[in-house]
Amino acid sequence: MNRTKIKQLLAAQTAPGTVRVCGWVRTRRDAKGFSFMEVNDGSCLENIQVIADAEIEGYSRVKQITTGAAVSVTGELKPSPGRKQDWEIQAAGISLLGPAPDTYPLQKKRHSDEFLRTIAHLRPRTNKYGAAFRIRSELSFAIHRFFHDRGFTYIHTPIITGSDCEGAGELFQVTALDMDHPPKTNGRVDYTQDFFEKPANLTVSGQLEAEMMALALGDVYTFGPTFRAENSNTSRHMAEFWMVEPEMSFCDLVGDMDNAEAFIKYVTQHIMTHCPSDLSLFARFVDQTLMETLENINASEFIRLPYKDATRILSGAKDRFTFPVDFGSDLQTEHERFLAETHFKQPVIIYDYPRSIKPFYMRVNDDGDTVAAMDVIVPRIGEIIGGSQREDRLDILYQRMIETGINPDDYWWYLDSRRYGSVYHSGYGAGFERLMMLLTGISNIRDVIPFPRTPSTLEF
Amino acid sequence: MNRTKIKQLLAAQTAPGTVRVCGWVRTRRDAKGFSFMEVNDGSCLENIQVIADAEIEGYSRVKQITTGAAVSVTGELKPSPGRKQDWEIQAAGISLLGPAPDTYPLQKKRHSDEFLRTIAHLRPRTNKYGAAFRIRSELSFAIHRFFHDRGFTYIHTPIITGSDCEGAGELFQVTALDMDHPPKTNGRVDYTQDFFEKPANLTVSGQLEAEMMALALGDVYTFGPTFRAENSNTSRHMAEFWMVEPEMSFCDLVGDMDNAEAFIKYVTQHIMTHCPSDLSLFARFVDQTLMETLENINASEFIRLPYKDATRILSGAKDRFTFPVDFGSDLQTEHERFLAETHFKQPVIIYDYPRSIKPFYMRVNDDGDTVAAMDVIVPRIGEIIGGSQREDRLDILYQRMIETGINPDDYWWYLDSRRYGSVYHSGYGAGFERLMMLLTGISNIRDVIPFPRTPSTLEF
Repeated sequence: MNRTKIKQLLAAQTAPGTVRVCGWVRTRRDAKGFSFMEVNDGSCLENIQVIADAEIEGYSRVKQITTGAAVSVTGELKPSPGRKQDWEIQAAGISLLGPAPDTYPLQKKRHSDEFLRTIAHLRPRTNKYGAAFRIRSELSFAIHRFFHDRGFTYIHTPIITGSDCEGAGELFQVTALDMDHPPKTNGRVDYTQDFFEKPANLTVSGQLEAEMMALALGDVYTFGPTFRAENSNTSRHMAEFWMVEPEMSFCDLVGDMDNAEAFIKYVTQHIMTHCPSDLSLFARFVDQTLMETLENINASEFIRLPYKDATRILSGAKDRFTFPVDFGSDLQTEHERFLAETHFKQPVIIYDYPRSIKPFYMRVNDDGDTVAAMDVIVPRIGEIIGGSQREDRLDILYQRMIETGINPDDYWWYLDSRRYGSVYHSGYGAGFERLMMLLTGISNIRDVIPFPRTPSTLEF
Repeated sequence: MNRTKIKQLLAAQTAPGTVRVCGWVRTRRDAKGFSFMEVNDGSCLENIQVIADAEIEGYSRVKQITTGAAVSVTGELKPSPGRKQDWEIQAAGISLLGPAPDTYPLQKKRHSDEFLRTIAHLRPRTNKYGAAFRIRSELSFAIHRFFHDRGFTYIHTPIITGSDCEGAGELFQVTALDMDHPPKTNGRVDYTQDFFEKPANLTVSGQLEAEMMALALGDVYTFGPTFRAENSNTSRHMAEFWMVEPEMSFCDLVGDMDNAEAFIKYVTQHIMTHCPSDLSLFARFVDQTLMETLENINASEFIRLPYKDATRILSGAKDRFTFPVDFGSDLQTEHERFLAETHFKQPVIIYDYPRSIKPFYMRVNDDGDTVAAMDVIVPRIGEIIGGSQREDRLDILYQRMIETGINPDDYWWYLDSRRYGSVYHSGYGAGFERLMMLLTGISNIRDVIPFPRTPSTLEF
């Protein structure tokens, strides 16, 4: 007999008769002549209650059906007399698929997030992490829906690459050489003998390649892993994280901001509509202002604020900050959060940043001092999206490469795109895990991805 | 004025009045007093024809509007007198956004796939590669739809990992050390000073981690990049490719085969329904048997053939093969293709392979000699899916690790999943690029991914 998922059972309108449910026991309580079990199969947050009378098939092993054990239950779906749910199962037979000895680490009690990170292979069996990973899945789907419905082409940009998009260092290197005894020339590693015959690293962004695709297909987006070998232990950074990077031909900075705002609102609304139950867990136990924050995102038009005006506002509140703010300085998270949380109390898009603090590929504005960059700042998180109109003029792009210390020869193909049929175009990068933090209220980025990668952490 | 995508224009039922189209010129022909242009914007395979009279705004630069140039055209959408399309644009104004000097490599003529690989940043501007990458996008979406609609949770498994799922070697190593001068202890690299404080590599499969998630959430799948440092230059292998890996709790080998067959049929049908025009290009110019192959996949029930019977059939035709076939030998592509193309003329699922040629995680059958493995073989490609029921019995799994030279201590977490609430479960891996080859008829794997990674190829 095929199993039915608990999510489906709990949504039943009429009793379907005999069903089979498989899952893991969360708790068991025994009474005289029968047992109650709460069974969860991961299809939803909710458990289904199973009532097993002592005379049913398989009851002899009921004492082994402890927290964490896997069971298969057949029985009748019946209206539940309890208040919590409409349905429960009156078991006709129960079989123990896999026991869970009492060394099982997830006994019924509160566990700290720190402890649960050490058993990341088991934590999706808890309510909180199960809910987080179901939301993560639904959020991924929402992202694909958003772009697909707007006629964007999803593209895969390379993970192993020879280029460093940000020119920022902090790269992981990739090699097939024997690192203990690499071939050497003049005391340095001879990469001509490596797999790619030159040094290779993990991508920090798919943007440059995405631009090549946008300049052929129009609207494209990536959704893939990116990497930073940044040796910092914060609650907002990981060595491996997922990014969404749309790139749009025939789109200027205003169009870029419009798309970014629509994107944030769409995925927020999608999760509120499709994950109400999982979301309610976070609203109850993790961040009690969560629903208000999400509703605020959907209801408000994002403030659009030139960087120059942002620094003026921030200068007026400078005693609140550790870092000073002047034109030409990069905004810190404290500044961003002040603007979104305290000053405007809603999402803000800051644009037209000083050219001196931004990478070579951003379009230089007519004032010569600023570039057509924009960052979307949201309450509690700070920057969630960073984007720009791209420099589409060959000569200026070339100058900017020189100015920022990029070797144009390494980017002949990128320059080609401005040589042949260049068009104005824009794009942005959205940190997927930051979005997850925004939507769940989870405050440590390590807790929104199944198996986080941070300095010294490579388990699983 | 907002631009309208050509795909939308060509699908118009009634003339929408004045429109704006942006795109790249494929050809221009001049006549007395006017010009015809074919413009493509990447939204679809088809161009739109633009008729520009000599007196319109911007016509003075018409000589610069050569193949590859980017233009913005406003004008009236009018019924086309030509046979090829319903609509054309009578331009009111045209502006040259970006010219394409006559060094533009994609002049109107046939280019070889080999040449186009050297300009992978420009090849999506050709009909063939534009079509391929639109199909790639739609195929990705179909994959997410298939699993999402069936209640699977999409998960991201780690890219950088300390474990080697296949135990097969051929790994890329990842490091943040200075490879010229790494810290050493006793003449060997001291990885305790590396980013993760131990050796790290790029994943070859997300399966083991996906199993951990399936044993909490029920049905899950991955869709992400995987890596092999295999130094072989074939038309079927790359160093970086994308895999889809579903993993299902409470699912045996039969359920696994059922899901795999449904999956292949679903995505095939989806592409036939949603990409008829792009597909027709491949059916005309790349593989004239393509539509027949795809219809055959949808129409037939896949043959299910025990490995033992497969070897019997193959032994009967052994003079056709370079490699011999006996029980215990791995099937080669020539054998797989013989079965699917010549013998059965339809997809075949071979199952119950000898334990001696399969990895430790596959469930040992009661006969002791075989494991519950299955491979889906399709005409023209050979193996497109490989999967198995997983070994869910702690003691046998442990033995199999020892037997295959895996150190159980490195996999304490994997063993944990069989210690606590173990259940029967199954999964498979589908090579995304192999699927692309099946669906387009493209015969070189380098031509179905935007920027291929193969030995010595790291450009872009």
